[in-house]
This record gives sequence, structure tokens and C-alpha cells, in this order.
Amino acid sequence: MIRVAIIGAAGLSGLELIRILTHHPMAELRVVTSDRHAGKRVGDAFPELSRVELVFSSHDAKLEGCDVAFLAIPNQASLEQAPRLLKQGLRVIDLSGVFRLADPDVFRTHYGLEHTAPRELREAVFGLPEAFRARIPKARLIANPGCYPTGALLGLLPLGDLLGGLAAPPIIDAKSGVSGAGGRVEDDATNFMEVNENFKAYKVFGHQHTPEIEQYLAECTPYAPARDGAVVFTPHLLPIGRGILSTIYLRFARPLEPEAVRRRFAAFAEREPFVHLLAAGRGAEVKMVQGLNDCVTSLHHDAEARSWVVITAIDNLGKGAAGQAVQNMNLMFGRAETEGLV
Amino acid sequence: MIRVAIIGAAGLSGLELIRILTHHPMAELRVVTSDRHAGKRVGDAFPELSRVELVFSSHDAKLEGCDVAFLAIPNQASLEQAPRLLKQGLRVIDLSGVFRLADPDVFRTHYGLEHTAPRELREAVFGLPEAFRARIPKARLIANPGCYPTGALLGLLPLGDLLGGLAAPPIIDAKSGVSGAGGRVEDDATNFMEVNENFKAYKVFGHQHTPEIEQYLAECTPYAPARDGAVVFTPHLLPIGRGILSTIYLRFARPLEPEAVRRRFAAFAEREPFVHLLAAGRGAEVKMVQGLNDCVTSLHHDAEARSWVVITAIDNLGKGAAGQAVQNMNLMFGRAETEGLV
Amino acid sequence: MIRVAIIGAAGLSGLELIRILTHHPMAELRVVTSDRHAGKRVGDAFPELSRVELVFSSHDAKLEGCDVAFLAIPNQASLEQAPRLLKQGLRVIDLSGVFRLADPDVFRTHYGLEHTAPRELREAVFGLPEAFRARIPKARLIANPGCYPTGALLGLLPLGDLLGGLAAPPIIDAKSGVSGAGGRVEDDATNFMEVNENFKAYKVFGHQHTPEIEQYLAECTPYAPARDGAVVFTPHLLPIGRGILSTIYLRFARPLEPEAVRRRFAAFAEREPFVHLLAAGRGAEVKMVQGLNDCVTSLHHDAEARSWVVITAIDNLGKGAAGQAVQNMNLMFGRAETEGLV
Amino acid sequence: MIRVAIIGAAGLSGLELIRILTHHPMAELRVVTSDRHAGKRVGDAFPELSRVELVFSSHDAKLEGCDVAFLAIPNQASLEQAPRLLKQGLRVIDLSGVFRLADPDVFRTHYGLEHTAPRELREAVFGLPEAFRARIPKARLIANPGCYPTGALLGLLPLGDLLGGLAAPPIIDAKSGVSGAGGRVEDDATNFMEVNENFKAYKVFGHQHTPEIEQYLAECTPYAPARDGAVVFTPHLLPIGRGILSTIYLRFARPLEPEAVRRRFAAFAEREPFVHLLAAGRGAEVKMVQGLNDCVTSLHHDAEARSWVVITAIDNLGKGAAGQAVQNMNLMFGRAETEGLV
Repeated sequence: MIRVAIIGAAGLSGLELIRILTHHPMAELRVVTSDRHAGKRVGDAFPELSRVELVFSSHDAKLEGCDVAFLAIPNQASLEQAPRLLKQGLRVIDLSGVFRLADPDVFRTHYGLEHTAPRELREAVFGLPEAFRARIPKARLIANPGCYPTGALLGLLPLGDLLGGLAAPPIIDAKSGVSGAGGRVEDDATNFMEVNENFKAYKVFGHQHTPEIEQYLAECTPYAPARDGAVVFTPHLLPIGRGILSTIYLRFARPLEPEAVRRRFAAFAEREPFVHLLAAGRGAEVKMVQGLNDCVTSLHHDAEARSWVVITAIDNLGKGAAGQAVQNMNLMFGRAETEGLV
Repeated sequence: MIRVAIIGAAGLSGLELIRILTHHPMAELRVVTSDRHAGKRVGDAFPELSRVELVFSSHDAKLEGCDVAFLAIPNQASLEQAPRLLKQGLRVIDLSGVFRLADPDVFRTHYGLEHTAPRELREAVFGLPEAFRARIPKARLIANPGCYPTGALLGLLPLGDLLGGLAAPPIIDAKSGVSGAGGRVEDDATNFMEVNENFKAYKVFGHQHTPEIEQYLAECTPYAPARDGAVVFTPHLLPIGRGILSTIYLRFARPLEPEAVRRRFAAFAEREPFVHLLAAGRGAEVKMVQGLNDCVTSLHHDAEARSWVVITAIDNLGKGAAGQAVQNMNLMFGRAETEGLV
Repeated sequence: MIRVAIIGAAGLSGLELIRILTHHPMAELRVVTSDRHAGKRVGDAFPELSRVELVFSSHDAKLEGCDVAFLAIPNQASLEQAPRLLKQGLRVIDLSGVFRLADPDVFRTHYGLEHTAPRELREAVFGLPEAFRARIPKARLIANPGCYPTGALLGLLPLGDLLGGLAAPPIIDAKSGVSGAGGRVEDDATNFMEVNENFKAYKVFGHQHTPEIEQYLAECTPYAPARDGAVVFTPHLLPIGRGILSTIYLRFARPLEPEAVRRRFAAFAEREPFVHLLAAGRGAEVKMVQGLNDCVTSLHHDAEARSWVVITAIDNLGKGAAGQAVQNMNLMFGRAETEGLV
Repeated sequence: MIRVAIIGAAGLSGLELIRILTHHPMAELRVVTSDRHAGKRVGDAFPELSRVELVFSSHDAKLEGCDVAFLAIPNQASLEQAPRLLKQGLRVIDLSGVFRLADPDVFRTHYGLEHTAPRELREAVFGLPEAFRARIPKARLIANPGCYPTGALLGLLPLGDLLGGLAAPPIIDAKSGVSGAGGRVEDDATNFMEVNENFKAYKVFGHQHTPEIEQYLAECTPYAPARDGAVVFTPHLLPIGRGILSTIYLRFARPLEPEAVRRRFAAFAEREPFVHLLAAGRGAEVKMVQGLNDCVTSLHHDAEARSWVVITAIDNLGKGAAGQAVQNMNLMFGRAETEGLV
């Protein structure tokens, strides 16, 4: 059994981790922390998890005997906790943004924090199995990808070399449910009256997930223009709880051969247990992935086949956070990648 | 022209007052206050009111030259401001709860505040025109009714004497949109993730609107049992922005004559410009009143005609707050009651 | 393994059955029918079930080799299919309303159908395990309870004898998500524009679940007044997908002892694997049960303890339909009651 | 007074026309037709319009004495009615799509209809006042613009000549509430269970509004590449009732001067009574325009100022349909353009 701790278990990602891991055949949930709920039985604090007998500890709980810790805490807290836990010999899957960007300057610009764990940063493996599967089993520290980068990269990476033929930066028009945008935070911006019957973009040309997409796109494909401005990424806030739809626009210098593109994309989906490609003519929808670790994709092009649209749907708490984190855990501990996730 | 100030104009009720009064033919909006937005043009801070050129003042703005002030501020603030403004010679329409309950002990129990303005409390007129129309024109201080009491009383008062025949306390099962339950507050309880796709009761047997309903029911009808427990009132939180539906259950000692009841109810609706009774067989819905100052009602009974259901729909920001406040202003200043409201 | 067929597998209840049963350790899903999708792989027609390789058959599919058939089809169709399948030796769990009401006259009044299977009707067992657990294992035909009756009865039955002291009919004010009110039907009433940002009661004093509640309440408790009018039941339509909250009002002839009532209720919840009682002061919410077979309940009373409110929350597709149907299957085939459901 | 008929008055656009015109100081609503509701008082059929005493006529109502007819009926019906009404001497404002596309072949391809009124088609004026104000006063037949083209063109036209410098087709990623996508239709696609908590694109590279955007963009700006593929337009379905947000992506061959662009856009907004430009740093939201005839826009660009995003928000039933139709009526009859609309 894999002995597991969840640090920050009462937030949305933490609760989703509890939900998944209590049904995982090889995981033994030993410690779940929450300062707010410390001392309460999980099932009492959250009746939707009524059968979970575990009691919340405070954040400074002892983690002896745990093999791995999931960090579902704010950025600054992860920056402090991850090095400490690694030193204690635990492996760490960090759901925050602090171990994803290779360049500390870019990090500072987008997160407003000084990076105090540069050694751990260099060691961290970006936990997108579809791109870095080979490196995950030996990783001590996984930087679990952001929800938007997951949705964007899973639509772009299957195209691989073809991206060398882009005539303009890829445009990612992403729409996220509230749980991917800081839900359960005491924040006006996610108040029901602000979100319900409303729709808007936010942080246009300024979201911290932009450099994350740019960095891994450059690492994995031949598309590598000047870093800043390599992709245009616009997040929007949907009046739903869970799910991200990313509508990705690609403009190529010359027409692509539609069947060849589809075959390439289909081959990728065939290889990947959590990526699905819809038949031509059908579009991805967020309801196809809610509660799941799946990414459902669809492919569309204009008459000339120079303008393409790739649509990806993921659950921001599933493949965009907790689900993907468990997928990474499976790989780290030599389990079947889909265990506990299908 | 009636020269108007709105104190607390950037909250939901305040913004609704701005919206109504800028279209009111006889109102001249002179002062709108908001500490948060002081110095900003209304139309810039709230683009949905793009044409409103007025600039927000801070709460200590001078109100010289105003005839009436609407108070759309928290309870404690109203308790302080109302006496001060009355002394300055303004008439006051207070949307908070502090001038509605006659008994300071009941007030203390439900609001957790000591009543520091007993004289003003005695003077205040409960601004439900359907019950107290005669007293409103001369009032200096209007206690604008709570949203739930408005929905409840407009379903009960038309029955008048018949309520003397009740065999059990009336039950008011009320469901409110979020704007009636403290929207735009930085509060977990109205976070989108708590409200969306959810539904729940709150403050069961403990809501501060219960004694308000009980007091005015006793004043206006023969139904007057022991005060505490006179009505059973359960508020619920709907995942919508605006609207309250109140399903009111009445159990009579003996059957009523259905046609007589309907005629009585219809006569009330006929007299009242903002009360509408649906034809038999049709039920009230909140969409029938959103954005309006109307109360739409429907009447239902069982085969024996001993058990009755009255359903009322109001917009909590309309007839439940800002709309009714303007209706009161019209009456106070000798205008047609419906002016600016239809 | 229990070999299973689902007749009408592409509706909301049918899809939920597929979702549950593909994860059930002892169920082998062999046949799923849908005229509309016949010939399509389930996972292609419904990408949210992407891994389900089964292919939809048409409704006249051969069911040889199946042990049990779930019927998730319209009333008239169930009335025809159930006898036919029983004759073929299958056991049947029927999710329609046609085998729940003992009296064919009452059935005709509420369903507008002549009952053409009176022998099967007499044989059918009402599949509410909390009330009829003993009779389910041997049943050939289970009448799976309606969603509203499940929510109502699970709030009332724990009180048992105490209901003999009622001074007025119990009032059940129920609010259901759209999937419990005929979702995925091509019907104006469930069009997004009718439901969203709206709320209303429907079929007041006329819903077909009223006699179902009345019948089983009379069978299981001492509360048995004249049948018609025994309970007051008002269903409402919530702008959410899944979940029913039932606010149940009870008025007793004399005060009850609160601790005794709570102990009795708690003992019931303790015995029942799917019934949970919240601690005093907390209210049931539909988000506590979405996607689950659980019923979460809360108990509230006024100062005098004569007026009581019981609140129950269920998922109309879970405990209110597919979940409960699988719970019945478990009991019918000698499995642990919670298998595949927790 | 302008004497008005609304043909198809019980649909969403028709009802919005009634709502606006009953408050319009110079309009006299004389005929409203609806086959379904013929003979019913408007205020009884739709209690949200409780004070409207007019009675619905059937579609073949006599229109003598009317000056103008709004057609809010399906495409085929408009194609038949418009010529007939013009012959009777009425002026016509048609809200369908049949008089917008100049080329009957393109029309046939996208609407699946043969154009049977070519003469009227040539005569029709596209009722986007911001582009064709000069031609509207004398028009007999107005083709009221589609909701998506309105949102797209109001974001593109202010840029005028600059569009000559585009390096790739403009991309319009549009998200619409359900009322803009065929609400109140008995159609699975707008069933609550399909839309709620979901989000999806539809008709990718195939929506009939694409050629409408392309045609008028070519007429009004120097951007005029090969017609098919001139713009990339992707509509999405939002789980809200009203509102369209269009996120428009522009990639220029060389950087633009940000201040100059903003000044140009601001000058356009300054001139246009219904177009508003938000201050830099703020993004347009659909809640800023719901219930209004306004278009709120925001301007964003990347560091290099080669990639630009224009965001426009309109209410699809306001500026996207009924509101704009009344704006056209005002211009046709020599009234102030904003009369009855602010």
C-alpha cells in the first residue's frame, strides 16, 4: 500500500483527493490536514464524504510512516513545505504553481514571490504524464500542472512537429468553472452574485499560466518563438462549478492534410489512457469529463485547412488537479497508471 | 421634484434604487454614497448604469437640500444614521431591520443589538402599503419591510378574518435568491461553490424575520396566538440571483368555501396595484416578478378545502426592498403610488 | 456474477445505472437497450462513459442469460414489459410508477392508465429497503420507489409511533432538480429558459406521488387518516440538475421530548447504511448527496417542541432511482447491501 | 405616435419587443400576434407583463392602420410575410436572417432555403446603425442584424483602416446565453439537462452568422480577403439566459501604437450612444449589458502590441435583437435614436 498524506485537505482539490484516494485500491490515506477543521472527523465536516472516518490534523501534523504527500496549499506554503517534507524522506506531489516555471525571474513576475527553493525547483518533474511519463517514476518532487496548461498542452502536443508550421501564435481561449478559479475563497470575485448569469474574461494577457504553457510547449515541440508572446491565452470564468473548455486556434503557413492530422491526433489518443478524440463533426463538452480524469478532444478545420480549432475538455479538479496528481502517484509507485481513476 | 439621497448606494439594494430612481419622473437623485467607491462616477464603477453621471460621495456626505434619504446600510449603521438624518429635517426610508420590531427585547434577541433609538422606533411606520397605506403619507420614518415578511404577509393578509379559523400555525416555506440573503458580501455562505447546484434551508426556527411576520400578522388579522411560535417560517437559499417564492400552508378547523375565498383574494388583488392573483390552476413563479415591484400570487386547496396553499412570488430587490421603498416614497410625497414603478 | 440488462439505458436513470453497474464488483452488464442509439457503442454515444464498450441494442433485444432486468422506461412500456420479462424467468426492478400503488382506481386517477397487470401488481414489493428489507430478497418484481416518496418516507418513517400524535396532516414541501422532473425530455417545461433563474411549484395538490406517500405511510406507521388528504405534498422545480430537498412539517397535539425524538431518529440512522442524521444545528443540503445513494437528514423543532421540521436530502437519480435500484439488486441476490454503492 | 405591430410576439424576441415598446413614449402597440396564444390577453399569458391589456391575434391578423411591423418569426415565415406586408404599405423590421446576406447562393448554403424575395433582398438595409445610420431613415425594409454579427462587428468596425494590416483572419470566439441560441424551442439542445453545468462550442466552422460577419466586414473596412475563411467564428453555448461575450483576436503584421488604437476606439464609442469603452485594465462582462441596448467593449494587447484582443458584451435580446430593432424604428421614424431605450 502507498501511505499517503494530504496537506490542505479541506480545500476543493484536497477534498477531491480524499474522494479519489478512499476508493483507490492501493492507497492508504493516513493523514489529512486542515487548520480550520483540525480535530473533526472528515465525514462530519463534509457529509458528502460521510464514510471517511479519518480525522483532520493541523498543518504541522507528523507525517512519519507516509510515503508521499500531496500539497494542496497556497503557493507560499508549498514553497516552504515541499523542501521540508523532501528532507524528511517523503516524496511530494505539489499542486501549487511554485515548481513549474524553470526561470525564477519569470516566476517572480507572475507569482510575486521570491523563489526560495531553487534546488528543489531544478529537481522537480512537470507531472504531465502525456509529455514526461518517463521521468515521473523516479521523481521525488512532482510539479502537478496547472489546470489551464493541462487543457492547452493536451490539445497542442499531439500535433507535435506540425506546430513548426504555425503562421501566428496559437490562441487559447479557455473557459473555466469556478472551482478552477479560486472557489471556496472568501473573495468577492467568486461570490454567487458576481458569477451567476455572468461571463467575463480575466487577467487578459496577464495570467500566470501563460509562461507555463509557453515553457512546456517550447520543451516539447518545435514551436519556439520569442518566449513572451509565444501563445495568446485568455481565461474566462464560467458560471459552473467544474470543467474547463479550451478552444485552441491555430493558423498555419500552408494548408495541412486533414486526414493526416486526424490520424496523428488519433494515434496520440490511442496511446494515452486518459485522452479521447471525438469523431469528426462532434465537439468536446465539459459535461463529458466532469468528475473524471479524462481529457476529451475534438478537431475542426476550415475549408482550406489552414485555420484549425482544437477543443479540449477537462475537469479542472480531475485531470486539472487531483486526478492528475493521483495519476502521477500511480506512476511514481509503479502502479497501473489508471488505477483508482477509471 | 423629490430630492433624494441614497446612503449605501453601491450595495445590491442601493444599485436597484439608483436604477429605479434615475427613471422616476419626479425624483431627482442628488447624493449617492459609498465609502468604497467615493469619488468615482456611478457609470464607471458600474457599467450597467453607464449613463448615470452622479459621483459617489463618502458616507459622511452633506445632505442639505435633500427631502428624503434611503438607508441601504447595515443594521448598526441605520440605527445611528436614521436619528441623525431625521434631526436634519430629512424624511427617512430605512431598508434595514432596525425599525420594524416594536419590542426591543425581541429585537435584541434576533439582531444581537441594543436598540438605541427607541423614540424613532415608536414613530416608525411599517412601509407595507397594502396594510398601512393610510399612515405612510405623514410618516417621517419608514421601516421598509423585510423581503420574507413582504412575501409572507401579502399571501396572508388578503385572507383577513378567515385566519381566525386556523387549526395550526401557518407554515411559510420560503425560497430566496442569493441577493436576498446577503449577496456581494465577502462571505463563504454566498460563494458560488456553496450555492450553485445546491439547495438548503438555513436558520430553521431562528430567522429574524419570524417575529416581524408574527407581529404584523397579529396587528392586521384576528390570528394572534402566543407570539413565539405563531408562525413556522423556514427560509431556503435558491441558486438564482433574484426572487422569493413563498409556499404558505394553512390548515383550517373546518372547510372553507373555495369560491368565497377566491373572491376575497381577488378583491384584494383588484384594489392593490402591485398584487396579482393568477387564475385557478396556475401557480406563481419567480420569473413573473423579476425586476418588478409586483407580487404574483396563486391559491390552491385540497379536495376537502381544509388544507390550503397560498404561493407568492416577489423580487426580493423589488417589492422586497428597493421597489417597495420607492412605492413608499411615492405615498410620502403625494405622488401616484405606481409612478416610476410600472 | 449477477447478469444484468437495462431496458431504456440511454435516459438519465439508465445512464446512471450504467455508471454504477460498470463499477459494481459483482454485476456483469450484458444488455443495454435504446432504440435511439441502437447499434452505437455506449462510450461513443456518451463520451462521459468513454470506457464502456457495450453496444446499445434495440428494445426488443433478447435477454437470454440475464438474471435481472432494470426497467427505466415510460409507465406504459413498463406495464407491458414487466409481465413479459417475468414470464421469461427474469427478475425485474421497475423504476416506473406502475407497480407502486395497490389500488387500481387510484392508479387510474393519477396515471391516466388502466392497470393491465393486476397479478404482477399484487406480487410487487415496494423497494424501499429501510421499510421492506425483509421482503426484497425473495421478490421477483421490485417496484422501485418514486424519488419524492423516498425523500418523504425516509424523513417520516424513523418517527414511527410518534406520528400517531399528529394534530394535522404532515406537509412535505419538496424541491427537486430537473433530472427528477423529466429531464432530457423534449418538453417546454424543462427548457433551460423556463427553469434557469426561475423557481415554481407544480401539480399542487395533484402530483401522482402523493398517494404513494400516503399508502406506505399508512402501511408503516400508525398515522392513517382518511387516505385522500392524509399528507399535503407540494413539489417544486429547482434550477439544478440533481438532488431533492424535502422540508417536512409536523404539528403534534402535544410537545415531544426533543432528546427522545433525536435518539429514535439517530437509532434509525445508525441501523441504516444509507441514512445519515446531522448533528443538531446543522441542516441537510443537496450537495451532501449528489452522485451518492445516501439520504442525509436533519431534525429541527420550535421552542415548545410541538412544531417539527425534518429535512431530507437525496439525489433523485441516486437514492431516488438508480442507486436505490442497485441497492435492491444487492438484496435480491444476497450481496452486501452497500456493494458497489459506497 | 408610431403605430406598431409585432408578428410573432410570444417568442423571446417578441416578448422583449412588447416590454420595450409598452414603455416607449412614441410607440403605440396595436397588434401582437401569436397563433398559440391567440385570443388571450398578453398580461394573462405572461404575468411578467401583467399590465399589458392587448390581446394576442393570430398570425393572419389585419394590420390596417399600422405604420411598421416587427417580424420575430422563423426564417421561412419572414420570407413570405415581409413582401406581403411591404405591399400593404407597412414598413418592416425583420429579425430573421433572410434579408441579411446579399448573395442568394451563400444564403441557400447556410439557411437551406431558396430565396423567393430577391427584390426585397436588394432593397433591404442592414440595421446596424453604427455602420449604416444614413440609410436607415428611408428604408422600407430593415434586416435587423444577427446577435453574433452585432457583437463581432461592434468590436471590429471601430478599428476601421487598421484592419488592413491584419496578418491572419480575425478570430471571434463568441459565447452566448441560451436565449440567443433558440430558447423556448422544444429542442433537446436547449433542455436544461443539456445546458446546465455544461459548456460547448457548436457549428464550428459552420454557423450561418459567419458569412454575415464576413460580408459587412468587407463592406465597411479594408479587410477583404477571399470571402470564405475571411473570419474564424466559433459560437459557444453558455449556461445563462441572456448575453453574448465575444472575445475577438487580432494579429497584425506589425505592432500598433496602443494609445492611437485606444483613441480611435474611444472616439467611436464617444460618437455612438450605445457603445461604451471600458478604461484600460478592465474587461467587458455580460452582466454590464443584460436588459439593455448597450454594447460594452474592452481593449487588450500583448507586450509587443501585435496581438490584440477586443471584447464586446451585448444582450442578445437587446442590442442583439429587440433593442436594436427599436433603435432602427426610432431612426426610421425620425425619433431620437435612444428614445425608449435608455
